[in-house]
Amino acid sequence: MDNKLMLMIPGPTPVPEPVLLAMAKHPIGHRSKDFEGLLADVTAQLKWLHQTQSDVLVLAASGTGAMEAGIINFLSAGDRVLVGVNGKFGDRWAQVCETYGLKVERVTAEWGKPLDPAEFRRLLDADTDKTIKAVVITHSETSTGVLNDLETISKDVKAHGALIMADAVTSLGATNVPMDEWGLDVVASGSQKGYMLPPGLGFVAVSQKAWDAYKTATLPRFYLDLGKYKKATDKNSTPFTPPVTLFFGLQVALDMMQKEGLESIFARHHRQKNATRAAMQAMSLPLFAADAAASPAITAVAPVSVDAEKIRSLVKKRFDILLAGGQDHLKGKIFRVGHLGFVSDRDILTAIGALEAALLELGYDQCQPGAGLAAASQVLTQG
Amino acid sequence: MDNKLMLMIPGPTPVPEPVLLAMAKHPIGHRSKDFEGLLADVTAQLKWLHQTQSDVLVLAASGTGAMEAGIINFLSAGDRVLVGVNGKFGDRWAQVCETYGLKVERVTAEWGKPLDPAEFRRLLDADTDKTIKAVVITHSETSTGVLNDLETISKDVKAHGALIMADAVTSLGATNVPMDEWGLDVVASGSQKGYMLPPGLGFVAVSQKAWDAYKTATLPRFYLDLGKYKKATDKNSTPFTPPVTLFFGLQVALDMMQKEGLESIFARHHRQKNATRAAMQAMSLPLFAADAAASPAITAVAPVSVDAEKIRSLVKKRFDILLAGGQDHLKGKIFRVGHLGFVSDRDILTAIGALEAALLELGYDQCQPGAGLAAASQVLTQG
Repeated sequence: MDNKLMLMIPGPTPVPEPVLLAMAKHPIGHRSKDFEGLLADVTAQLKWLHQTQSDVLVLAASGTGAMEAGIINFLSAGDRVLVGVNGKFGDRWAQVCETYGLKVERVTAEWGKPLDPAEFRRLLDADTDKTIKAVVITHSETSTGVLNDLETISKDVKAHGALIMADAVTSLGATNVPMDEWGLDVVASGSQKGYMLPPGLGFVAVSQKAWDAYKTATLPRFYLDLGKYKKATDKNSTPFTPPVTLFFGLQVALDMMQKEGLESIFARHHRQKNATRAAMQAMSLPLFAADAAASPAITAVAPVSVDAEKIRSLVKKRFDILLAGGQDHLKGKIFRVGHLGFVSDRDILTAIGALEAALLELGYDQCQPGAGLAAASQVLTQG
Repeated sequence: MDNKLMLMIPGPTPVPEPVLLAMAKHPIGHRSKDFEGLLADVTAQLKWLHQTQSDVLVLAASGTGAMEAGIINFLSAGDRVLVGVNGKFGDRWAQVCETYGLKVERVTAEWGKPLDPAEFRRLLDADTDKTIKAVVITHSETSTGVLNDLETISKDVKAHGALIMADAVTSLGATNVPMDEWGLDVVASGSQKGYMLPPGLGFVAVSQKAWDAYKTATLPRFYLDLGKYKKATDKNSTPFTPPVTLFFGLQVALDMMQKEGLESIFARHHRQKNATRAAMQAMSLPLFAADAAASPAITAVAPVSVDAEKIRSLVKKRFDILLAGGQDHLKGKIFRVGHLGFVSDRDILTAIGALEAALLELGYDQCQPGAGLAAASQVLTQG
């Protein structure tokens, strides 16, 4: 059915109507008092969201652009960095580092398994000469639905003295990422995720320790030069023309988040993750990530006796719900349900209901019809 | 008056209502058939707009991000480049080149004066060893309202063999920039200008000759790596999450441009430029650029007996029309009228009328009230 699409992918995520309408407003000049006020307001809200006193900068870029900026502004060619790789995005940050001539050591785990903090600790402990300059961790690995233990790894990195850089693209606004409490130096994210916005804005939060490293870091950057963004942001301005209408939406979305409250937002994502996982288990659909490492934003499912792509395509065709497929070598092997951002408990019931109907149509006989919905309802109503 | 703002700055420019409404639509998934169709459609339209058979790539970035990408993808550290500098943007491209360790030679002209093609020819002719790898030219210098002679410079660069890279941010969609006919290798632009969109999208058109240079170019880039964009665009996809709702607007805006036709669009900008300039002269307000080098997008005015910022601020306060001020050392010395993108002849009359009223209120006595409007009307109605 046309114009009836429901997004249950890990981004773009659903956008609330007040945000959509704010973005339909006519642009204002970005060198005006009005825009200065907007930027000041939004910057304060972003610090709240990141639970930080540090700078949070906004770029016209995707999450990848933001994360690249978060890496290249604080390092120099030849610097040794550890990069956690257990999915497509961890792998991407290793590629970014290699592109800029950093000495990259990949600390890997199988896709679908979490990174092992002990492995990082071992490498950090052994590095008595302090040659490791930074550790790059993907908090929620969007490609597999795995949440890595950023808090633990971060503590060990702090003790060592290197910078800890986090891709929080699908964790920020979904689960707790307290930048200051955990001592994170770089936190990168993108608008089409927990922010409840369309894609187009990237965010980078930067600690004072990272700014100290900035002074001597020599990798080349201009558009992605965060020093330019900081200098401008300190004056409620931007170094380059900002996407004015996306900023209108950002202000409305952050207002909504503040009204809901961080604790409620995190509890909602946690509850919906548990409901989704309970439903999959009740339908005998194997979960790709273990409970202890499950992302609050994405549930990846690896069906055995029924084709993942067939399920996905039928759910789209019959019920206009978009689920995500697998990426790279997981293509066709898993499907992914996004429960990130502006998602209500009703949406979870809807998605599970549609999934059950599609399984029925595909002749799947590994579960009692209704079992998934019953399990999800149980979690949603009783926690 | 609230919500009554009229933009007469060189960007963001006015956005048509159908474009605003298209951007208020709910996002779709960017890895879907629907988005593939949209991207294919938009890419064909962009080639039409650039008058080229070459690739036109779309980035989530400002015009600066697009121009930086257009420079760094085709060069290596130490490469010798000539950069035309006669305003803020020419200076910015020289800074980009320096940031990446290129050997930069600035070919300068006073701000407000055009670059001298003979100076480029002399340097190119003298370069018998072909050490010059690229020439970077700002076509319409937004900071001064000067249109540089890109066509002539381009011809000489082609004869030499270097790459010719053009910042067409405020010329594309306002005046003729026939990429293939002029043999341009890189053409960069941004959405908030002739495209009639809010800011947030950057565009880079790339010739085959530039792609040949790409193969051996070694400057580091990942998010701005145009090879990634080409590879994806060839499959109607994007390497990173695209700003989906801005693409909705882009499709509508390019449709509108196709309906109006390139010749009509260029004629409209030319007529409005002439009307604006005639009005300024009739009001004894000195034009900052000479007729022969006047940008079709921006008219810069350098008032003598009345303060530029006072005019600007009164026009804003009394009539809700936003004019641009001067940048860098021209701050307070000039004001700039944008007549770029979705601007009708009515808007020109409105702006001139408001300007006259403001001058009257400021006690300016260097012209007969009504003289500006009469001069503009004359040009608009009789060409």
